[in-house]
Amino acid sequence: MTDFIEKLAAASTKNKSMVCVGLDPDSKLMPPGIGVFEFNKAIIEATSDLVCCYKPNFAFYEALGNDGLDALKKTVACIPDGIPCIADAKRGDIGNTARAYASAIFDHFGFDAATASPYLGYDSLEPFIERKDKGVFILCRTSNAGAADFQSLEVTVNGERRPLFEVVADTAGKWNKYGNIGLVVGATYPDELKTIHAAHPDMPLLIPGIGAQGGDLETTVKNGADKLGQKTVINSSRGILYASNGKDFAAAARKECLKMRDAINAVRK
Amino acid sequence: MTDFIEKLAAASTKNKSMVCVGLDPDSKLMPPGIGVFEFNKAIIEATSDLVCCYKPNFAFYEALGNDGLDALKKTVACIPDGIPCIADAKRGDIGNTARAYASAIFDHFGFDAATASPYLGYDSLEPFIERKDKGVFILCRTSNAGAADFQSLEVTVNGERRPLFEVVADTAGKWNKYGNIGLVVGATYPDELKTIHAAHPDMPLLIPGIGAQGGDLETTVKNGADKLGQKTVINSSRGILYASNGKDFAAAARKECLKMRDAINAVRK
Repeated sequence: MTDFIEKLAAASTKNKSMVCVGLDPDSKLMPPGIGVFEFNKAIIEATSDLVCCYKPNFAFYEALGNDGLDALKKTVACIPDGIPCIADAKRGDIGNTARAYASAIFDHFGFDAATASPYLGYDSLEPFIERKDKGVFILCRTSNAGAADFQSLEVTVNGERRPLFEVVADTAGKWNKYGNIGLVVGATYPDELKTIHAAHPDMPLLIPGIGAQGGDLETTVKNGADKLGQKTVINSSRGILYASNGKDFAAAARKECLKMRDAINAVRK
Repeated sequence: MTDFIEKLAAASTKNKSMVCVGLDPDSKLMPPGIGVFEFNKAIIEATSDLVCCYKPNFAFYEALGNDGLDALKKTVACIPDGIPCIADAKRGDIGNTARAYASAIFDHFGFDAATASPYLGYDSLEPFIERKDKGVFILCRTSNAGAADFQSLEVTVNGERRPLFEVVADTAGKWNKYGNIGLVVGATYPDELKTIHAAHPDMPLLIPGIGAQGGDLETTVKNGADKLGQKTVINSSRGILYASNGKDFAAAARKECLKMRDAINAVRK
Protein backbone atom coordinates (compact mmCIF):
# COMPACT_ATOMS: atom_id res chain seq x y z
CA MET A 1 0.00 0.00 0.00
CA THR A 2 1.35 3.40 -0.88
CA ASP A 3 0.42 6.80 0.42
CA PHE A 4 -1.56 7.68 -2.69
CA ILE A 5 -3.39 4.36 -2.70
CA GLU A 6 -4.15 4.73 1.02
CA LYS A 7 -5.30 8.30 0.57
CA LEU A 8 -7.58 7.33 -2.33
CA ALA A 9 -9.08 4.45 -0.35
CA ALA A 10 -9.65 6.64 2.70
CA ALA A 11 -11.27 9.48 0.72
CA SER A 12 -13.44 7.04 -1.24
CA THR A 13 -14.60 5.39 1.97
CA LYS A 14 -15.16 8.59 3.94
CA ASN A 15 -17.10 10.32 1.16
CA LYS A 16 -18.72 7.09 -0.09
CA SER A 17 -17.68 8.20 -3.53
CA MET A 18 -16.03 7.06 -6.75
CA VAL A 19 -16.46 10.51 -8.27
CA CYS A 20 -13.44 12.41 -9.51
CA VAL A 21 -14.05 15.99 -10.57
CA GLY A 22 -11.90 16.90 -13.57
CA LEU A 23 -10.78 20.48 -13.02
CA ASP A 24 -10.53 21.60 -16.65
CA PRO A 25 -11.15 25.33 -16.74
CA ASP A 26 -12.52 26.63 -20.03
CA SER A 27 -13.22 30.37 -20.12
CA LYS A 28 -15.86 29.88 -22.82
CA LEU A 29 -17.91 27.75 -20.42
CA MET A 30 -17.08 29.38 -17.08
CA PRO A 31 -19.21 32.11 -15.50
CA PRO A 32 -18.15 35.45 -16.98
CA GLY A 33 -15.57 37.47 -15.06
CA ILE A 34 -14.27 34.74 -12.77
CA GLY A 35 -10.59 33.74 -12.58
CA VAL A 36 -9.41 30.15 -12.96
CA PHE A 37 -8.24 29.71 -9.38
CA GLU A 38 -11.32 31.41 -7.97
CA PHE A 39 -13.49 29.10 -10.10
CA ASN A 40 -11.63 25.95 -9.04
CA LYS A 41 -11.67 26.96 -5.38
CA ALA A 42 -15.44 27.44 -5.42
CA ILE A 43 -15.92 24.06 -7.17
CA ILE A 44 -13.66 22.32 -4.64
CA GLU A 45 -15.39 23.94 -1.65
CA ALA A 46 -18.75 22.87 -3.04
CA THR A 47 -17.79 19.24 -3.73
CA SER A 48 -14.93 18.10 -1.47
CA ASP A 49 -17.21 16.01 0.76
CA LEU A 50 -18.61 14.20 -2.27
CA VAL A 51 -15.53 13.09 -4.23
CA CYS A 52 -12.69 10.57 -3.99
CA CYS A 53 -10.25 12.86 -5.78
CA TYR A 54 -9.70 15.76 -8.20
CA LYS A 55 -7.98 15.67 -11.56
CA PRO A 56 -6.80 18.87 -13.29
CA ASN A 57 -5.62 18.42 -16.87
CA PHE A 58 -2.38 20.32 -17.50
CA ALA A 59 -3.37 21.35 -21.03
CA PHE A 60 -6.00 23.83 -19.87
CA TYR A 61 -3.52 25.55 -17.57
CA GLU A 62 -0.58 25.54 -19.98
CA ALA A 63 -2.77 27.20 -22.60
CA LEU A 64 -3.07 30.17 -20.22
CA GLY A 65 0.67 30.55 -19.75
CA ASN A 66 2.19 31.30 -16.37
CA ASP A 67 -1.05 32.66 -14.96
CA GLY A 68 -2.60 29.28 -15.68
CA LEU A 69 0.23 27.38 -14.02
CA ASP A 70 0.07 29.68 -11.00
CA ALA A 71 -3.63 28.91 -10.77
CA LEU A 72 -2.87 25.19 -11.06
CA LYS A 73 -0.37 25.25 -8.22
CA LYS A 74 -2.74 27.22 -6.00
CA THR A 75 -5.57 24.84 -6.91
CA VAL A 76 -3.61 21.76 -5.82
CA ALA A 77 -2.65 23.53 -2.59
CA CYS A 78 -6.25 24.43 -1.71
CA ILE A 79 -7.62 20.88 -1.95
CA PRO A 80 -8.44 19.69 1.58
CA ASP A 81 -6.00 17.29 3.25
CA GLY A 82 -7.07 13.73 2.71
CA ILE A 83 -8.42 14.24 -0.82
CA PRO A 84 -5.84 13.16 -3.41
CA CYS A 85 -5.18 15.07 -6.61
CA ILE A 86 -4.18 13.42 -9.90
CA ALA A 87 -2.16 15.35 -12.51
CA ASP A 88 -3.68 14.50 -15.87
CA ALA A 89 -0.52 15.16 -17.83
CA LYS A 90 -0.16 12.01 -19.96
CA ARG A 91 3.60 12.44 -19.97
CA GLY A 92 5.96 9.99 -21.62
CA ASP A 93 9.60 10.74 -22.30
CA ILE A 94 13.05 9.15 -21.97
CA GLY A 95 14.75 8.57 -18.61
CA ASN A 96 16.36 11.86 -17.59
CA THR A 97 13.47 13.84 -19.09
CA ALA A 98 10.86 11.65 -17.42
CA ARG A 99 12.59 12.37 -14.11
CA ALA A 100 12.22 16.09 -14.76
CA TYR A 101 8.49 15.63 -15.49
CA ALA A 102 8.00 13.55 -12.33
CA SER A 103 9.79 16.22 -10.34
CA ALA A 104 7.63 18.98 -11.85
CA ILE A 105 4.40 17.11 -11.11
CA PHE A 106 5.14 15.70 -7.66
CA ASP A 107 7.59 18.22 -6.20
CA HIS A 108 6.81 21.56 -7.82
CA PHE A 109 3.03 21.20 -8.07
CA GLY A 110 2.52 18.75 -5.19
CA PHE A 111 0.29 16.17 -6.92
CA ASP A 112 -0.39 12.73 -5.42
CA ALA A 113 -0.52 10.89 -8.74
CA ALA A 114 -0.13 11.38 -12.48
CA THR A 115 -1.28 9.92 -15.76
CA ALA A 116 1.43 8.71 -18.15
CA SER A 117 1.64 7.32 -21.67
CA PRO A 118 3.07 3.82 -22.19
CA TYR A 119 4.46 4.25 -25.73
CA LEU A 120 8.08 4.78 -24.63
CA GLY A 121 8.16 1.76 -22.34
CA TYR A 122 9.39 1.01 -18.85
CA ASP A 123 12.26 3.46 -18.44
CA SER A 124 9.94 6.35 -19.35
CA LEU A 125 7.60 5.35 -16.50
CA GLU A 126 10.22 4.32 -13.96
CA PRO A 127 10.72 7.80 -12.43
CA PHE A 128 6.98 7.84 -11.68
CA ILE A 129 6.76 4.22 -10.50
CA GLU A 130 9.79 4.60 -8.25
CA ARG A 131 8.02 7.33 -6.30
CA LYS A 132 6.38 4.67 -4.14
CA ASP A 133 4.27 7.20 -2.24
CA LYS A 134 2.78 8.50 -5.50
CA GLY A 135 0.44 6.89 -8.01
CA VAL A 136 0.78 6.53 -11.76
CA PHE A 137 -2.15 5.78 -14.06
CA ILE A 138 -0.90 4.36 -17.35
CA LEU A 139 -3.00 5.06 -20.45
CA CYS A 140 -4.51 1.76 -21.54
CA ARG A 141 -7.77 2.18 -23.51
CA THR A 142 -8.57 5.85 -23.78
CA SER A 143 -12.04 7.34 -24.13
CA ASN A 144 -11.63 9.09 -27.50
CA ALA A 145 -12.73 8.03 -30.97
CA GLY A 146 -9.16 7.62 -32.26
CA ALA A 147 -8.24 5.25 -29.42
CA ALA A 148 -8.73 2.26 -31.72
CA ASP A 149 -6.15 3.50 -34.26
CA PHE A 150 -3.31 1.85 -32.34
CA GLN A 151 -4.68 0.62 -29.00
CA SER A 152 -6.87 -2.02 -30.64
CA LEU A 153 -4.29 -3.35 -33.07
CA GLU A 154 -3.84 -7.11 -32.80
CA VAL A 155 -0.50 -7.86 -31.18
CA THR A 156 1.16 -11.26 -30.99
CA VAL A 157 2.82 -11.99 -27.65
CA ASN A 158 4.01 -15.51 -26.76
CA GLY A 159 2.15 -16.87 -29.75
CA GLU A 160 -1.15 -15.39 -28.63
CA ARG A 161 -2.89 -12.61 -30.54
CA ARG A 162 -4.52 -9.88 -28.44
CA PRO A 163 -5.30 -6.15 -28.66
CA LEU A 164 -2.43 -3.82 -27.77
CA PHE A 165 -4.31 -2.26 -24.84
CA GLU A 166 -4.60 -5.66 -23.14
CA VAL A 167 -0.88 -6.19 -23.54
CA VAL A 168 -0.30 -2.74 -22.04
CA ALA A 169 -2.52 -3.65 -19.07
CA ASP A 170 -0.75 -6.98 -18.50
CA THR A 171 2.67 -5.37 -18.79
CA ALA A 172 1.70 -2.60 -16.36
CA GLY A 173 0.50 -5.33 -14.00
CA LYS A 174 3.92 -7.00 -14.16
CA TRP A 175 5.64 -3.66 -13.44
CA ASN A 176 3.40 -3.05 -10.40
CA LYS A 177 5.84 -4.20 -7.72
CA TYR A 178 4.95 -1.35 -5.36
CA GLY A 179 1.19 -1.51 -5.97
CA ASN A 180 1.10 2.13 -7.10
CA ILE A 181 0.22 1.60 -10.78
CA GLY A 182 -3.29 2.07 -12.10
CA LEU A 183 -4.79 2.11 -15.60
CA VAL A 184 -6.77 4.66 -17.60
CA VAL A 185 -9.73 3.02 -19.34
CA GLY A 186 -12.49 5.06 -20.99
CA ALA A 187 -16.15 4.60 -20.04
CA THR A 188 -16.92 4.91 -23.73
CA TYR A 189 -15.58 1.36 -24.27
CA PRO A 190 -17.57 -0.72 -21.72
CA ASP A 191 -16.55 -4.15 -23.08
CA GLU A 192 -12.88 -3.27 -22.94
CA LEU A 193 -13.38 -1.86 -19.43
CA LYS A 194 -14.94 -5.15 -18.34
CA THR A 195 -12.10 -7.21 -19.81
CA ILE A 196 -9.42 -5.10 -18.18
CA HIS A 197 -11.08 -4.95 -14.76
CA ALA A 198 -11.67 -8.70 -14.79
CA ALA A 199 -8.02 -9.37 -15.68
CA HIS A 200 -6.66 -6.86 -13.14
CA PRO A 201 -9.21 -6.54 -10.32
CA ASP A 202 -6.62 -5.17 -7.89
CA MET A 203 -5.36 -2.32 -10.06
CA PRO A 204 -6.91 1.13 -9.57
CA LEU A 205 -8.83 2.35 -12.62
CA LEU A 206 -9.18 5.95 -13.71
CA ILE A 207 -12.26 6.06 -15.91
CA PRO A 208 -12.91 9.17 -18.01
CA GLY A 209 -15.61 9.49 -20.65
CA ILE A 210 -18.80 9.79 -18.59
CA GLY A 211 -21.15 12.63 -19.48
CA ALA A 212 -20.12 14.93 -22.32
CA GLN A 213 -18.16 12.10 -23.98
CA GLY A 214 -21.13 9.72 -23.90
CA GLY A 215 -20.07 6.90 -21.54
CA ASP A 216 -22.95 5.24 -19.67
CA LEU A 217 -22.65 5.46 -15.90
CA GLU A 218 -24.54 2.29 -14.99
CA THR A 219 -22.54 0.08 -17.37
CA THR A 220 -19.32 1.70 -16.23
CA VAL A 221 -19.99 0.87 -12.59
CA LYS A 222 -21.09 -2.68 -13.39
CA ASN A 223 -18.05 -3.33 -15.59
CA GLY A 224 -15.34 -1.38 -13.82
CA ALA A 225 -16.03 -0.74 -10.12
CA ASP A 226 -14.01 -2.55 -7.47
CA LYS A 227 -15.99 -4.33 -4.77
CA LEU A 228 -14.79 -2.32 -1.79
CA GLY A 229 -15.13 0.98 -3.61
CA GLN A 230 -11.61 2.07 -2.80
CA LYS A 231 -9.77 2.16 -6.10
CA THR A 232 -12.23 3.15 -8.81
CA VAL A 233 -12.02 6.74 -10.00
CA ILE A 234 -14.85 7.80 -12.31
CA ASN A 235 -14.16 11.21 -13.76
CA SER A 236 -16.57 13.89 -14.84
CA SER A 237 -15.33 17.30 -15.93
CA ARG A 238 -17.72 19.35 -18.05
CA GLY A 239 -20.90 17.72 -16.68
CA ILE A 240 -20.13 18.96 -13.17
CA LEU A 241 -18.06 22.11 -13.73
CA TYR A 242 -20.44 23.70 -16.19
CA ALA A 243 -23.80 22.61 -14.79
CA SER A 244 -24.51 26.35 -14.65
CA ASN A 245 -22.55 29.35 -15.85
CA GLY A 246 -24.46 31.74 -13.62
CA LYS A 247 -23.71 32.87 -10.08
CA ASP A 248 -25.05 29.51 -8.84
CA PHE A 249 -22.32 27.55 -10.67
CA ALA A 250 -20.85 26.06 -7.48
CA ALA A 251 -24.23 25.01 -6.09
CA ALA A 252 -25.16 23.56 -9.48
CA ALA A 253 -21.84 21.68 -9.60
CA ARG A 254 -22.51 20.26 -6.12
CA LYS A 255 -25.95 19.10 -7.21
CA GLU A 256 -24.54 17.30 -10.28
CA CYS A 257 -21.72 15.81 -8.25
CA LEU A 258 -24.13 14.50 -5.61
CA LYS A 259 -26.38 13.09 -8.31
CA MET A 260 -23.45 11.27 -9.92
CA ARG A 261 -22.14 9.94 -6.60
CA ASP A 262 -25.55 8.63 -5.60
CA ALA A 263 -26.24 7.15 -9.03
CA ILE A 264 -22.96 5.21 -8.80
CA ASN A 265 -23.78 3.99 -5.29
CA ALA A 266 -27.28 2.96 -6.34
CA VAL A 267 -25.81 0.71 -9.03
CA ARG A 268 -23.28 -0.73 -6.57
CA LYS A 269 -26.03 -1.87 -4.16
CA MET B 1 4.94 22.69 -48.44
CA THR B 2 4.13 24.31 -45.15
CA ASP B 3 5.77 27.21 -43.41
CA PHE B 4 7.59 25.00 -40.93
CA ILE B 5 8.78 22.63 -43.64
CA GLU B 6 9.93 25.59 -45.78
CA LYS B 7 11.67 27.21 -42.83
CA LEU B 8 13.47 23.97 -41.95
CA ALA B 9 14.58 23.46 -45.55
CA ALA B 10 15.81 27.05 -45.82
CA ALA B 11 17.74 26.95 -42.53
CA SER B 12 19.25 23.55 -43.37
CA THR B 13 20.37 24.82 -46.78
CA LYS B 14 21.68 28.19 -45.59
CA ASN B 15 23.64 26.74 -42.68
CA LYS B 16 24.52 23.51 -44.53
CA SER B 17 23.40 21.71 -41.41
CA MET B 18 21.29 18.84 -40.11
CA VAL B 19 22.23 19.70 -36.54
CA CYS B 20 19.50 20.45 -34.03
CA VAL B 21 20.65 21.69 -30.65
CA GLY B 22 18.46 20.33 -27.87
CA LEU B 23 18.06 23.12 -25.34
CA ASP B 24 17.69 21.03 -22.19
CA PRO B 25 18.99 23.14 -19.29
CA ASP B 26 20.27 21.12 -16.33
CA SER B 27 21.63 23.21 -13.46
CA LYS B 28 23.87 20.34 -12.37
CA LEU B 29 25.72 20.51 -15.71
CA MET B 30 25.50 24.25 -16.49
CA PRO B 31 28.21 26.73 -15.55
CA PRO B 32 27.66 27.82 -11.95
CA GLY B 33 25.68 31.00 -11.36
CA ILE B 34 24.11 31.36 -14.80
CA GLY B 35 20.34 31.57 -15.39
CA VAL B 36 18.50 29.30 -17.80
CA PHE B 37 17.59 32.01 -20.30
CA GLU B 38 21.04 33.58 -20.16
CA PHE B 39 22.56 30.13 -20.77
CA ASN B 40 20.25 29.36 -23.72
CA LYS B 41 20.79 32.79 -25.25
CA ALA B 42 24.56 32.36 -25.18
CA ILE B 43 24.26 28.87 -26.72
CA ILE B 44 21.96 30.18 -29.46
CA GLU B 45 24.20 33.16 -30.25
CA ALA B 46 27.18 30.81 -30.49
CA THR B 47 25.52 28.25 -32.77
CA SER B 48 22.72 29.82 -34.82
CA ASP B 49 24.77 29.86 -38.05
CA LEU B 50 25.52 26.16 -37.65
CA VAL B 51 22.14 24.56 -37.01
CA CYS B 52 18.92 23.72 -38.85
CA CYS B 53 16.79 24.18 -35.74
CA TYR B 54 16.57 24.17 -31.95
CA LYS B 55 14.57 21.84 -29.74
CA PRO B 56 13.84 22.67 -26.08
CA ASN B 57 12.31 19.84 -24.08
CA PHE B 58 9.43 21.11 -21.92
CA ALA B 59 10.26 18.83 -18.99
CA PHE B 60 13.39 20.74 -18.05
CA TYR B 61 11.47 24.02 -17.95
CA GLU B 62 8.38 22.69 -16.17
CA ALA B 63 10.60 21.28 -13.44
CA LEU B 64 11.65 24.86 -12.67
CA GLY B 65 8.09 26.15 -12.33
CA ASN B 66 7.04 29.48 -13.76
CA ASP B 67 10.59 30.81 -13.88
CA GLY B 68 11.43 27.92 -16.16
CA LEU B 69 8.46 28.56 -18.44
CA ASP B 70 9.30 32.26 -18.58
CA ALA B 71 12.80 31.30 -19.64
CA LEU B 72 11.36 28.94 -22.26
CA LYS B 73 9.17 31.64 -23.79
CA LYS B 74 12.05 34.12 -23.87
CA THR B 75 14.29 31.45 -25.38
CA VAL B 76 11.90 30.78 -28.27
CA ALA B 77 11.58 34.53 -28.86
CA CYS B 78 15.34 35.09 -29.03
CA ILE B 79 16.01 32.49 -31.74
CA PRO B 80 16.91 34.35 -34.96
CA ASP B 81 14.22 34.62 -37.64
CA GLY B 82 14.58 31.84 -40.13
CA ILE B 83 15.69 29.18 -37.64
CA PRO B 84 12.74 26.99 -36.62
CA CYS B 85 12.16 25.81 -33.08
CA ILE B 86 10.59 22.44 -32.19
CA ALA B 87 8.73 21.96 -28.89
CA ASP B 88 9.78 18.58 -27.56
CA ALA B 89 6.64 18.04 -25.54
CA LYS B 90 5.51 14.54 -26.60
CA ARG B 91 1.91 15.49 -25.93
CA GLY B 92 -1.00 13.17 -26.58
CA ASP B 93 -4.50 13.75 -25.25
CA ILE B 94 -8.12 13.68 -26.39
CA GLY B 95 -9.61 16.23 -28.78
CA ASN B 96 -10.49 19.32 -26.76
CA THR B 97 -7.43 18.82 -24.54
CA ALA B 98 -5.13 18.32 -27.50
CA ARG B 99 -6.40 21.62 -28.88
CA ALA B 100 -5.41 23.33 -25.63
CA TYR B 101 -1.92 21.79 -25.86
CA ALA B 102 -1.53 22.86 -29.49
CA SER B 103 -2.61 26.36 -28.53
CA ALA B 104 -0.13 26.49 -25.64
CA ILE B 105 2.75 25.32 -27.83
CA PHE B 106 2.08 27.26 -31.03
CA ASP B 107 0.27 30.38 -29.80
CA HIS B 108 1.50 31.02 -26.26
CA PHE B 109 5.10 29.91 -26.71
CA GLY B 110 5.41 30.54 -30.46
CA PHE B 111 6.97 27.24 -31.55
CA ASP B 112 7.14 26.19 -35.21
CA ALA B 113 6.64 22.47 -34.57
CA ALA B 114 6.02 19.96 -31.79
CA THR B 115 6.60 16.31 -30.96
CA ALA B 116 3.51 14.24 -30.14
CA SER B 117 2.74 10.72 -28.99
CA PRO B 118 0.64 8.43 -31.23
CA TYR B 119 -0.94 6.22 -28.56
CA LEU B 120 -4.29 8.05 -28.51
CA GLY B 121 -4.73 8.00 -32.28
CA TYR B 122 -5.75 10.47 -34.94
CA ASP B 123 -8.07 12.80 -33.07
CA SER B 124 -5.36 13.43 -30.47
CA LEU B 125 -3.01 14.59 -33.24
CA GLU B 126 -5.53 16.41 -35.41
CA PRO B 127 -5.25 19.80 -33.63
CA PHE B 128 -1.51 19.72 -34.40
CA ILE B 129 -1.86 18.40 -37.95
CA GLU B 130 -4.56 20.91 -38.83
CA ARG B 131 -2.15 23.75 -38.10
CA LYS B 132 -0.85 23.50 -41.65
CA ASP B 133 1.85 26.12 -41.09
CA LYS B 134 3.26 24.13 -38.17
CA GLY B 135 5.03 20.78 -38.04
CA VAL B 136 4.30 17.72 -35.91
CA PHE B 137 6.83 14.95 -35.30
CA ILE B 138 5.06 11.78 -34.22
CA LEU B 139 6.98 9.43 -31.91
CA CYS B 140 7.75 6.31 -33.90
CA ARG B 141 10.84 4.45 -32.62
CA THR B 142 12.28 6.32 -29.68
CA SER B 143 15.92 6.32 -28.62
CA ASN B 144 15.55 4.86 -25.12
CA ALA B 145 16.12 1.33 -23.86
CA GLY B 146 12.44 0.75 -23.04
CA ALA B 147 11.36 1.65 -26.57
CA ALA B 148 11.08 -2.02 -27.47
CA ASP B 149 8.56 -2.77 -24.70
CA PHE B 150 5.65 -1.77 -26.93
CA GLN B 151 7.06 -0.19 -30.11
CA SER B 152 8.57 -3.47 -31.30
CA LEU B 153 5.59 -5.68 -30.58
CA GLU B 154 4.49 -7.66 -33.61
CA VAL B 155 1.22 -6.26 -34.91
CA THR B 156 -1.02 -7.88 -37.51
CA VAL B 157 -2.48 -5.45 -40.04
CA ASN B 158 -4.20 -6.68 -43.20
CA GLY B 159 -2.90 -10.16 -42.53
CA GLU B 160 0.70 -9.00 -42.39
CA ARG B 161 2.74 -9.10 -39.20
CA ARG B 162 5.03 -6.11 -38.53
CA PRO B 163 6.46 -4.15 -35.59
CA LEU B 164 4.15 -1.52 -34.10
CA PHE B 165 6.55 1.34 -34.90
CA GLU B 166 6.35 0.52 -38.63
CA VAL B 167 2.57 0.59 -38.46
CA VAL B 168 2.76 3.95 -36.68
CA ALA B 169 5.03 5.28 -39.46
CA ASP B 170 2.74 4.02 -42.23
CA THR B 171 -0.34 5.40 -40.51
CA ALA B 172 1.34 8.78 -39.98
CA GLY B 173 2.22 8.73 -43.67
CA LYS B 174 -1.46 8.22 -44.56
CA TRP B 175 -2.46 11.12 -42.30
CA ASN B 176 0.10 13.42 -43.92
CA LYS B 177 -2.25 15.23 -46.31
CA TYR B 178 -0.66 18.63 -45.66
CA GLY B 179 2.93 17.37 -45.72
CA ASN B 180 3.59 18.71 -42.21
CA ILE B 181 4.03 15.39 -40.39
CA GLY B 182 7.45 14.01 -39.50
CA LEU B 183 8.62 11.05 -37.41
CA VAL B 184 10.84 10.70 -34.34
CA VAL B 185 13.30 7.83 -34.76
CA GLY B 186 16.22 7.27 -32.40
CA ALA B 187 19.80 7.07 -33.67
CA THR B 188 20.28 4.26 -31.18
CA TYR B 189 18.28 1.93 -33.47
CA PRO B 190 20.07 2.27 -36.85
CA ASP B 191 18.33 -0.68 -38.54
CA GLU B 192 14.90 0.63 -37.64
CA LEU B 193 15.95 4.11 -38.80
CA LYS B 194 16.98 2.67 -42.16
CA THR B 195 13.70 0.80 -42.57
CA ILE B 196 11.61 3.84 -41.74
CA HIS B 197 13.56 6.26 -43.92
CA ALA B 198 13.44 3.84 -46.85
CA ALA B 199 9.68 3.43 -46.49
CA HIS B 200 9.02 7.16 -46.04
CA PRO B 201 11.83 9.06 -47.79
CA ASP B 202 9.76 12.25 -48.02
CA MET B 203 8.85 12.54 -44.35
CA PRO B 204 11.04 14.72 -42.13
CA LEU B 205 12.87 12.76 -39.45
CA LEU B 206 13.78 14.06 -36.01
CA ILE B 207 16.62 11.85 -34.80
CA PRO B 208 17.65 12.01 -31.14
CA GLY B 209 20.11 9.66 -29.46
CA ILE B 210 23.47 10.85 -30.80
CA GLY B 211 26.21 11.47 -28.26
CA ALA B 212 25.37 10.86 -24.61
CA GLN B 213 22.80 8.22 -25.57
CA GLY B 214 25.27 6.29 -27.72
CA GLY B 215 23.92 6.58 -31.29
CA ASP B 216 26.59 6.48 -34.00
CA LEU B 217 26.67 9.59 -36.18
CA GLU B 218 28.02 8.03 -39.37
CA THR B 219 25.47 5.21 -39.40
CA THR B 220 22.71 7.66 -38.58
CA VAL B 221 23.53 9.84 -41.57
CA LYS B 222 23.88 6.86 -43.91
CA ASN B 223 20.62 5.32 -42.75
CA GLY B 224 18.46 8.36 -42.13
CA ALA B 225 19.58 11.49 -44.02
CA ASP B 226 17.50 12.80 -46.91
CA LYS B 227 19.34 13.44 -50.16
CA LEU B 228 18.81 17.19 -50.36
CA GLY B 229 19.58 17.73 -46.71
CA GLN B 230 16.40 19.66 -46.07
CA LYS B 231 14.33 17.50 -43.76
CA THR B 232 16.68 15.56 -41.52
CA VAL B 233 17.03 16.87 -37.97
CA ILE B 234 19.78 15.21 -35.95
CA ASN B 235 19.61 16.29 -32.34
CA SER B 236 22.37 16.66 -29.80
CA SER B 237 21.69 18.10 -26.37
CA ARG B 238 24.21 17.28 -23.66
CA GLY B 239 27.13 16.75 -26.06
CA ILE B 240 26.92 20.36 -27.25
CA LEU B 241 25.43 22.22 -24.27
CA TYR B 242 27.83 20.85 -21.72
CA ALA B 243 31.04 20.66 -23.73
CA SER B 244 32.42 22.91 -21.00
CA ASN B 245 30.95 24.17 -17.75
CA GLY B 246 33.47 26.99 -17.49
CA LYS B 247 33.25 30.55 -18.79
CA ASP B 248 34.05 29.22 -22.26
CA PHE B 249 30.87 27.11 -22.39
CA ALA B 250 29.43 28.95 -25.42
CA ALA B 251 32.66 28.76 -27.40
CA ALA B 252 33.01 25.08 -26.46
CA ALA B 253 29.42 24.46 -27.56
CA ARG B 254 30.14 26.16 -30.89
CA LYS B 255 33.18 23.98 -31.40
CA GLU B 256 31.21 20.77 -30.74
CA CYS B 257 28.33 21.94 -32.92
CA LEU B 258 30.69 22.75 -35.80
CA LYS B 259 32.40 19.39 -35.39
CA MET B 260 29.05 17.58 -35.53
CA ARG B 261 27.83 19.58 -38.53
CA ASP B 262 31.01 18.94 -40.46
CA ALA B 263 31.11 15.27 -39.51
CA ILE B 264 27.58 14.86 -40.86
CA ASN B 265 28.45 16.68 -44.08
CA ALA B 266 31.60 14.60 -44.53
CA VAL B 267 29.51 11.43 -44.45
CA ARG B 268 26.99 12.92 -46.87
CA LYS B 269 29.66 13.58 -49.50
